[in-house]
Amino acid sequence: MYPDIQGTKHALARFAASRPAFVCVVSHTATSEIPGLTVAGANPELVKRTSPADAEFLHYGRCRCIPGVPATPDGKPTPAIITRAVLALAEIPLLVVEAGTEIKPLIPAVSFGLKPGGNITTEDAIDINDVHSAVDYGRALGSQLAKASDLVVIGESIPGGTTTALAVLTALGVNAKFKVSSSMPENPHSLKNKVVVEALARAKARRGMKPLEAVALVGDPMMPSVAGIAAGAIRSGAKVMLAGGTQMAAVLALLKGLSLPLKNISIGTTKYVAADRSSDLAGLVRAVAPGVPVLSCDLHFEKSKKPGLRAFAEGFVKEGVGAGGVSIAAMIKSKGKINGKMLLAAIEKEYASSIERRSSRT
Amino acid sequence: MYPDIQGTKHALARFAASRPAFVCVVSHTATSEIPGLTVAGANPELVKRTSPADAEFLHYGRCRCIPGVPATPDGKPTPAIITRAVLALAEIPLLVVEAGTEIKPLIPAVSFGLKPGGNITTEDAIDINDVHSAVDYGRALGSQLAKASDLVVIGESIPGGTTTALAVLTALGVNAKFKVSSSMPENPHSLKNKVVVEALARAKARRGMKPLEAVALVGDPMMPSVAGIAAGAIRSGAKVMLAGGTQMAAVLALLKGLSLPLKNISIGTTKYVAADRSSDLAGLVRAVAPGVPVLSCDLHFEKSKKPGLRAFAEGFVKEGVGAGGVSIAAMIKSKGKINGKMLLAAIEKEYASSIERRSSRT
Repeated sequence: MYPDIQGTKHALARFAASRPAFVCVVSHTATSEIPGLTVAGANPELVKRTSPADAEFLHYGRCRCIPGVPATPDGKPTPAIITRAVLALAEIPLLVVEAGTEIKPLIPAVSFGLKPGGNITTEDAIDINDVHSAVDYGRALGSQLAKASDLVVIGESIPGGTTTALAVLTALGVNAKFKVSSSMPENPHSLKNKVVVEALARAKARRGMKPLEAVALVGDPMMPSVAGIAAGAIRSGAKVMLAGGTQMAAVLALLKGLSLPLKNISIGTTKYVAADRSSDLAGLVRAVAPGVPVLSCDLHFEKSKKPGLRAFAEGFVKEGVGAGGVSIAAMIKSKGKINGKMLLAAIEKEYASSIERRSSRT
Repeated sequence: MYPDIQGTKHALARFAASRPAFVCVVSHTATSEIPGLTVAGANPELVKRTSPADAEFLHYGRCRCIPGVPATPDGKPTPAIITRAVLALAEIPLLVVEAGTEIKPLIPAVSFGLKPGGNITTEDAIDINDVHSAVDYGRALGSQLAKASDLVVIGESIPGGTTTALAVLTALGVNAKFKVSSSMPENPHSLKNKVVVEALARAKARRGMKPLEAVALVGDPMMPSVAGIAAGAIRSGAKVMLAGGTQMAAVLALLKGLSLPLKNISIGTTKYVAADRSSDLAGLVRAVAPGVPVLSCDLHFEKSKKPGLRAFAEGFVKEGVGAGGVSIAAMIKSKGKINGKMLLAAIEKEYASSIERRSSRT
């Protein structure tokens, strides 16, 4: 039924849904300002604007807080183009949650009233009260989303988020070294490991700390926000798909800490993360929450005529802004009528109209 | 099928819906600070907190920014208790839009990034750019809501809103004098008329002005926000119910100004507004947009054991926070299985748990 989704039959049956909704949580962590850690932005100043610009792009097909679209320094475009094209094709509703960005996106976004996350090597990531508040707001929102939707797909845009994920997982005793993903083909593992060692020493992290505490010390504002939304949606009877790569393993750890039954939670991502040799999403999920299925989708980008999309299949960007999870939700919602090639065609069209047109202007 | 909805068969058939969603737009206008204009708040200082407190109550069944719940000086409680009870019973999803409140509600709310409205007797209500921005944000949000819902019910909480409605309608050449509603049994028409005369003179309002311009001069931030959401939802194929009293006539005027086809728009309110002798909702709607149906519901409050609810049937409060429209949506969604008496029972239970329990504490 789903030739382009990789996952067990059992998991696919369990996550059948006719009314998925997509929530994109956008946040900032000052950790992303450490040189060399992320390429989610053409230069360090633009990295701060990547997540709000992604959110603007999802709504309008163009950004307001930056010219053009978020891209790596060598011009690989944001995965938001995938997400936008897929949401439109499958008529999946979008809601953006602004959870601690540096720049507020110029769109109607739900505000969680959070400050951007601190640079974990020099300061605590988030005040513990704000962690609780994010979970609380998330629960309230998630329970409403569950009334409108049977599958709440939750994605993120936070540059530097795999490093904070590594820090939180490590603080909780999960061996995540060399397992988190990257937006670069050359995953800067040793830099990430160094940052995390520094952060944990600075935070005086000790064994046996609670997940919410670990997030406050060395996480980021996206994590408790996504976890809260997931918790609220699950409690109110919806299923949840965490749409992203290895960052979502940290969210899973947080959900375990909230004593939430995880049987209605899955992870949805692209093949470009799932099959990435420089990271190990499946291994991380097994270590944190065995039994949570990882679904991944094939978007056939290696066959794309667009160089910016082929790059995804060559190890650049790979995932983000919920691209993989939303693609899976589109296939599931359409009961397989929408497949990876149809999505590729829609994404190429979005690419042509929003990326190429814009570049030709500049 | 709907013994407790007043409206034509034709209108009821046209607004059949299985997946209504409710959006509550909360705003402030400094016009409400003119003494004697509103009793939506126990004292002038609390009036500023009424709309965020209503939003908090909808989510949590208790307020965060005030002790207790919003009430009139003599203790008649907010219609948010109706809305909350009905949303829960009919499992209708809620989304709050914060569109220019003085105090931000402590809930996950969509922010439209607006300032509170000015006191129209002394200053312009809203910068014209903010009016356009509110409509624009509204359109973006409304088009997403239309993907998740077939009937978008839009309510408001803005103390003083009938006076700004009177001002906008008058500026647009509609004879609305003595026709707008009030939260008091003794409708202070002469004070409202005086305020509007002052405001129009101050604003140098001239004949033939455009609705958006009238809103900028003498309206409030709720109006373009609700109009934008309605416009976006309609354009994306949903039906819309403007849930409120005479304030919604000003929103209709605005929607006409946006050249929106109005055939999929209705007004939904309580019998306590529709049958109010001190105002004329039906007449206003006929004058602004003939053909837009006004549906009203009977909640049998005159038979309630709770004095605070009986007061609604005696001319106090009457409507607000989308109470009437949400009640109609609940009846429609349930295909008549939910009727006015069932709603009364649920509302009395909410009243007992949130109002009486709280008063007994203080």
